[in-house]
Amino acid sequence: MNEIKIFSPATVANVACGFDVLGFCLDNVGDDMVIRKVDKKGIKITHIEGFDLPYEAEKNVAGVSALAMYDAINVDFGFEIEIYKNIKPGSGIGSSAASAVGSVFGMNELLGRPFNKTELTQFAIKGEALASKCEHADNLAPAMFGGFTLVKGIKPLQILEIPSPEDLYATIIHPQIEIKTSESRAVLPQDVSLSDAITQWSNVGSLIHALHTSDYDLIKDSLHDVIIEPHRSKLIPHYNEVKQIMLEAGALGACISGSGPSIFSLCKGEEIANNVAQALKKAYSLITDIEFDIHVSKINTKGVKIC
Amino acid sequence: MNEIKIFSPATVANVACGFDVLGFCLDNVGDDMVIRKVDKKGIKITHIEGFDLPYEAEKNVAGVSALAMYDAINVDFGFEIEIYKNIKPGSGIGSSAASAVGSVFGMNELLGRPFNKTELTQFAIKGEALASKCEHADNLAPAMFGGFTLVKGIKPLQILEIPSPEDLYATIIHPQIEIKTSESRAVLPQDVSLSDAITQWSNVGSLIHALHTSDYDLIKDSLHDVIIEPHRSKLIPHYNEVKQIMLEAGALGACISGSGPSIFSLCKGEEIANNVAQALKKAYSLITDIEFDIHVSKINTKGVKIC
Repeated sequence: MNEIKIFSPATVANVACGFDVLGFCLDNVGDDMVIRKVDKKGIKITHIEGFDLPYEAEKNVAGVSALAMYDAINVDFGFEIEIYKNIKPGSGIGSSAASAVGSVFGMNELLGRPFNKTELTQFAIKGEALASKCEHADNLAPAMFGGFTLVKGIKPLQILEIPSPEDLYATIIHPQIEIKTSESRAVLPQDVSLSDAITQWSNVGSLIHALHTSDYDLIKDSLHDVIIEPHRSKLIPHYNEVKQIMLEAGALGACISGSGPSIFSLCKGEEIANNVAQALKKAYSLITDIEFDIHVSKINTKGVKIC
Repeated sequence: MNEIKIFSPATVANVACGFDVLGFCLDNVGDDMVIRKVDKKGIKITHIEGFDLPYEAEKNVAGVSALAMYDAINVDFGFEIEIYKNIKPGSGIGSSAASAVGSVFGMNELLGRPFNKTELTQFAIKGEALASKCEHADNLAPAMFGGFTLVKGIKPLQILEIPSPEDLYATIIHPQIEIKTSESRAVLPQDVSLSDAITQWSNVGSLIHALHTSDYDLIKDSLHDVIIEPHRSKLIPHYNEVKQIMLEAGALGACISGSGPSIFSLCKGEEIANNVAQALKKAYSLITDIEFDIHVSKINTKGVKIC
């Protein structure tokens, strides 16, 4: 096998209470990539569609993670990468993570799987760091492993796979605005009150328990963020109204996806997830003239895959 | 049935990373109580052994929780309470919680169980508040339900029962010193860094996952407290040495039990738990002349019980 086609999924990081550690994987939103083994040594990006991104491997997220992996192997051939990008960079649903994960996953398949998924994520972190200027894995982990993940640590990288209840769906709205990474970082508090921190870790603990026990009521009770949301939500126009629409349409909970501007909700069952999408479609253009996309997706328990 | 004998167990609150929310229950350490239905209305404490505690129901933890429950029922009889106290008040292993839980559990049994365990804990909170000057349930919940518990909220009271791995044991050392509640409160930080808070909720999430999956290595990786231990450990003489002895003897982790002075460790298997106890017995009296008790216990998955 010299060529492989990959689907690399979009992801939601933070999941309300789990800032910097939790994430989950989407099913039908993601990038397609082709990875090809070629005689010429090195990593070459040969095609990019969808968005305007650099072709130089050293400047491209998929390229940088591929190079990190390529440096760790000793082969007399190279790889070409084609990227068919569906996830808009800066949307807050793991666009760079999808690119970073797709290239190393595909190369690993063509090499006969010398690396496990944690090792692959380690390479992908290098690509993600190009986009976000720091090493983190809260989008990479769910894109690579699927389902819900908890990044227990970066050094050494430790990723926990948390079970996903069968009937859990996400509805996501992506308002087509740009939030500068520097701005979304700048609003984060340096310190938080002990009392808020306790509330947050109580919610993280109960969310993990709820996912293990498929307790949808408890998922609902746990999807709260008292630390980050109050600050970052101010950067997203009409955030509170959108959240309210999602909750009133039956979502279990809603919060900022990653650092925004996308807003995710989790729902019990496809019907409610579609109701949330319908309610958003109806209401959002009455509130504002910002362009938007809406995604409805089952939780993807497989992650990146050959297609 | 007009009289019942109760075993009300000792408990460990906080469990390293889970300050204010997590706790677990001990098996062979606890108070015995006798609850008796009598003609005379009201709550009367008729016997106390072990420690010098007030006989007036309104000033006694077991009495206050019994009165809270008695106020919620309408009966033409009363209850007598005998307390055989084995858990020293102020030891940090839930002495007041055991008293508060025992009386209401026993009364409920004699009444034919009109209340569920969460409702009983609600009454017990009133007793606990007498001892600790604030309403909390992190010792009450494991004493009532057994196993590991997460107190998701106080108002309304929401207690989650987390599974306990089969082979999990605790070894606890109780140095016979007094730490004033006011002092252990005063050292708590008002604010914590966001970075430490993230580490803490990552550990809470991974500990819950580890308990669900019986992953002892992950329990070990999760039993860290970067928020409270650095402050409260200073109030416990030789804390770091004791912790080191426990870890070197094979404990998965060790930390302050509740607000101290007891120090708990969790161990995989009875043999290691006994090794930790032996190592402590050997070393502690060489370090200091503080008197001490040591307890080795399987995690008690039943909680308070008729005996």
